Amino acid sequence: MVGKNQIKQVRSLHQKKYRNQKNLFFVEGIKVVMELLNAGFVLEKLYATKANLALFYGHSVEEITAEELVKMSALRTPNGVLAVFQMPEKNSVPTEDWVVALDDVRDPGNLGTIIRLCDWYGIKNMVCSSNTVDCFNPKVLQATMGSIARVSVHYTELSTYLKDTKLPIYGTFIQGKSVYEMAWPTSGILVMGNEAHGISPEISALVTKQISIPQYGEQSAESLNVSTATGILLNELRRF
Amino acid sequence: MVGKNQIKQVRSLHQKKYRNQKNLFFVEGIKVVMELLNAGFVLEKLYATKANLALFYGHSVEEITAEELVKMSALRTPNGVLAVFQMPEKNSVPTEDWVVALDDVRDPGNLGTIIRLCDWYGIKNMVCSSNTVDCFNPKVLQATMGSIARVSVHYTELSTYLKDTKLPIYGTFIQGKSVYEMAWPTSGILVMGNEAHGISPEISALVTKQISIPQYGEQSAESLNVSTATGILLNELRRF
Repeated sequence: MVGKNQIKQVRSLHQKKYRNQKNLFFVEGIKVVMELLNAGFVLEKLYATKANLALFYGHSVEEITAEELVKMSALRTPNGVLAVFQMPEKNSVPTEDWVVALDDVRDPGNLGTIIRLCDWYGIKNMVCSSNTVDCFNPKVLQATMGSIARVSVHYTELSTYLKDTKLPIYGTFIQGKSVYEMAWPTSGILVMGNEAHGISPEISALVTKQISIPQYGEQSAESLNVSTATGILLNELRRF
Repeated sequence: MVGKNQIKQVRSLHQKKYRNQKNLFFVEGIKVVMELLNAGFVLEKLYATKANLALFYGHSVEEITAEELVKMSALRTPNGVLAVFQMPEKNSVPTEDWVVALDDVRDPGNLGTIIRLCDWYGIKNMVCSSNTVDCFNPKVLQATMGSIARVSVHYTELSTYLKDTKLPIYGTFIQGKSVYEMAWPTSGILVMGNEAHGISPEISALVTKQISIPQYGEQSAESLNVSTATGILLNELRRF
C-alpha cells in the first residue's frame, strides 16, 4: 500500500522546479528503468505492480496497485513500473570528440529523439541553452528510450560556452556549405536551433562553419524538423 | 456569423470515417492553407478571423470569431485560419523514381515528419498499409508543414503492392548491408516499419535488399525513431 504522501512526492517531480529542488527525477517502463540501473544511476524508490515485482530481484521494490500508479504516472496508460532516481552528477564537458549543442529547442519529443540519436552516433555530451526543454521532463525521458543513461546533458549559458571553446562550431544555414562536400574533423560542436526560429542571432554570430543539407530537385519543402535534421547531420559527420 | 451546423460539419472531419464519406479534409494556419491553394487543391470552405480576412483576397472566405474557431479547431490554440478542402484525386503510383512505403506506422507526428522528408528529398509518392495512420488526420497535416501539397500518399494492401512491383524493395534490418556501402539505383521502394515492431514478418519476406544504418562506436542505443531513420536513409539514397 503506497501512501498519499508518496504519490504526492512523485507527482511533484512532474515539475522541473521540484526535480531540481530535490535533485530527483522519475522514469517509467521496464526497459528504461533497467537501462538506468545498469548504467549505475542511483535508485531512490522503485514501484512495480504485482505482475512486475519479480523483475527487480535484488532491488528494494515496493508493490503498487494500478490505481495508485495512475495517480503518480505521467503516461495516459501507465505500464507497471515507475522508478525515482537521483540526478546524475555533472562532469565538465570534454573538449574533444563531438558535442551537440541545442539553442532553445522546446519540444520534448524533439529533445528525446536527439538524445537517442546522440546515443546511436556515440556522442556522449550535449550542451543546452537554459531555455531548452528539461531533459528530465517525463515526455523527454519517454522519447529517449533509455538513451539518457548514456548521454550527459548539460544546461548552461550557451553563448558563454561557445565563446570559451576552442572547438569549431557548426550550424546549418541556407547559404551554408553542402554537408556532402565537408571534411569533418574528429571533434567539434554541432549547434541546432529552435523549432520555429532556427539558431538565434546571438548564437549564429558564434558559428564558425556554416553548413547545409542539400535539398533534392526543385525547391519545395521549406525546412526539416530539428530532430530529423540532427539525425542526417550526425550520420554525415560519423560517416566512414 | 458561422452557424452551429457549419461547426458540426468541420468537427465531423476530425474523424477519418467522415473525411472519407464526404471526401473532405481540413487544415489550419495561413502557411499550410496558402500552400494547398497554390498547389491547386480544391477549396470547399475557408474560415478566417477578422485580422486574417484580407490575406485571402480573391477567395470566398467567411469571417469567424475566435470562439467559433475554437469549436471547430483541432489545435489547443487555433491560429486564425481554417480551410476545408476536397481530397485530391489519386493517380496510380509510378513505377519509376523512389517510393517510400510504410508498414503500420501509427504515430501522426512520425507520418507528418516522413511526408515532410519526402518533400525535401523529392519523393513524390508514398504507399501506406491500410493500418498506417491516415494522412488527412489533423495532427499529421500539422506535422507536414504544408508538404502534403506536394507528396501523394496512397493507402493500399501493402503486400499486394510489393508482390506486383518490379522495383527493388529496400528495408532496414540489423544484419543488413551498411548504407555507406550501397550503390543506390535511380528507382526503388524504401519500406519503413511500425514504431515498436519494425517491418512485419509478411512484409519482411518481400524485401529484396536488406540494409542497415551503422551505429558509431560500441553498441548502445537499440534503435532509431522511424522518422529520423527515414531521414537518414533518404539522405543516403539521394546523396550526390
